[in-house]
Amino acid sequence: MILNFDDVLAAAKRIHGVAHRTPVLTARTIDELTGAQVHLKAENFQRIGAFKFRGAYNAISQLSEEQLRRGVAGYSSGNHAQAVALAARMAGVPSVILMPEDTPEAKVDATRGYGAEVVTYDRYTQNRVELGERLAAERGLALIPPYEHPHVMAGQGTVALELLEEVPDLDTLLVPIGGGGLMAGCATAVKAMRPGIRVVGVEPAAGDDTKRSLDAGERVSIEVPRTIADGQAADIPGEMTFSVNRRLVDEIVLVRDEEIRDAMKLAFERLKIVLEPSGAITLAALLTGAAGEVEGKVGVVLSGGNIGVRRFIELLGS
Amino acid sequence: MILNFDDVLAAAKRIHGVAHRTPVLTARTIDELTGAQVHLKAENFQRIGAFKFRGAYNAISQLSEEQLRRGVAGYSSGNHAQAVALAARMAGVPSVILMPEDTPEAKVDATRGYGAEVVTYDRYTQNRVELGERLAAERGLALIPPYEHPHVMAGQGTVALELLEEVPDLDTLLVPIGGGGLMAGCATAVKAMRPGIRVVGVEPAAGDDTKRSLDAGERVSIEVPRTIADGQAADIPGEMTFSVNRRLVDEIVLVRDEEIRDAMKLAFERLKIVLEPSGAITLAALLTGAAGEVEGKVGVVLSGGNIGVRRFIELLGS
Repeated sequence: MILNFDDVLAAAKRIHGVAHRTPVLTARTIDELTGAQVHLKAENFQRIGAFKFRGAYNAISQLSEEQLRRGVAGYSSGNHAQAVALAARMAGVPSVILMPEDTPEAKVDATRGYGAEVVTYDRYTQNRVELGERLAAERGLALIPPYEHPHVMAGQGTVALELLEEVPDLDTLLVPIGGGGLMAGCATAVKAMRPGIRVVGVEPAAGDDTKRSLDAGERVSIEVPRTIADGQAADIPGEMTFSVNRRLVDEIVLVRDEEIRDAMKLAFERLKIVLEPSGAITLAALLTGAAGEVEGKVGVVLSGGNIGVRRFIELLGS
Repeated sequence: MILNFDDVLAAAKRIHGVAHRTPVLTARTIDELTGAQVHLKAENFQRIGAFKFRGAYNAISQLSEEQLRRGVAGYSSGNHAQAVALAARMAGVPSVILMPEDTPEAKVDATRGYGAEVVTYDRYTQNRVELGERLAAERGLALIPPYEHPHVMAGQGTVALELLEEVPDLDTLLVPIGGGGLMAGCATAVKAMRPGIRVVGVEPAAGDDTKRSLDAGERVSIEVPRTIADGQAADIPGEMTFSVNRRLVDEIVLVRDEEIRDAMKLAFERLKIVLEPSGAITLAALLTGAAGEVEGKVGVVLSGGNIGVRRFIELLGS
């Protein structure tokens, strides 16, 4: 087994007191709109603004002394970059992050702000996985990938673990799927703790690689998705994540960008919280009915809130 | 005495389990920017999205059976309208709310959504206090004013009571001042619990009626303020609130609209929370240094988060 429940439990111990135990929010508005009792796990309040810190810290804290001395590498245009940079700084370890040349400056600055060295590449002509592996090999760095790593997946699984500790008797749990690491960890925790909970993954309609793969029974590659949900622009599920998710995920549902925008607006106006598009996609699936008819207690993972005011206005200003 | 600490304690009992006990947030970003340990009392997560529910509920729950049977009246273009409407509905009491004709439809709808009858008036030619009193007299309704009422002030004081229960050893507390009810209640609680805490009021620079009044030693009227902080557009302090605040407030500081905008942006991008302008004014006072050199533990009342996406974009889109 790539990943089992003990790995998630061990991750929870490692991140205890380091990652935030994020709040589980409830809101009458959402309950009234859906007819369910909805429990929102607010990872937008996690360190670096998204769940990614959990996996990065869990992976880095298991490196050997020799590896820690040399440092770590990561690749990401998004939340994983800051997650690795911050987790490395907290472990007292140097980090090098590969980021696309056209990454918004604010994200590059934030990553550098955590003490990371940022190396840029051209994402239209260069392969980040190959680049990352070469960089790690050349410099002797431990590569912390965004999802294809058991320790990363186990760390992300603590999201569901914490939610079920507070609300054990969920009927359904909605989790966003990009590369599949968050889902692999969460599904592992849920199916060990309460196998009867229906675990539903949510993908952007344009980025339905995991849904297609599950339907086909094997990993299917799609065109690089065009979606506002930039945390979920994967074009193929990870090998490891898919092997876990095909076994444990009950269903995948799809949400359109316009529906994500509506959910971001509702979160802003009614919940008073900021969600990035991928962070709002599960809420969108619930509100639009894409998640099917929900009854009883529904858990919803709000995966992150990293969106600048300028981008928020671009998305919601029309 | 118009108001004493026992009134605040009694209010806390009345609203217990009815109002939300809002979270006290901390953020490394804010601590690093200010050099203090900052504790943010997040009333944007209060019912109806602002602290106003506390006072309205505390007042309505002390009405006689005869008054409850007849119903209540309120006047407000903002958060107090929804607060009275919701508190009345929860007490099973009919409510009538006077709102300016040009109130945004969303706010009128929200108030009606809580079951209130909305009566509109022309705020350029009609006096809302007189109208409210006449309406209340004609229909036999109990008038719940937005701040000139001991029960309303006592209810608002539970904000500081809760904050000090969690963080007793504050050095400074920052509270927004509009009509002065929130401050009157909070200052009463603080000076009874920990008289050494420096209590600082924050007004918009264009709406400095309380500062001028304190400087003059008597209530001073100013031109109707032009400020984005619509919750603080008072042109003269209340009689009751001023009599409390002149005794208990240590200092008033002023913040410009541009600084409020910056604080709203920071709250959005770094804290992942939504604040309306008046809700961000204390944070602005802290970040700009208007609140003076702060040391040690600082409490900051974030009074509300009722701002639509459209208005947010108007304010921050340029």
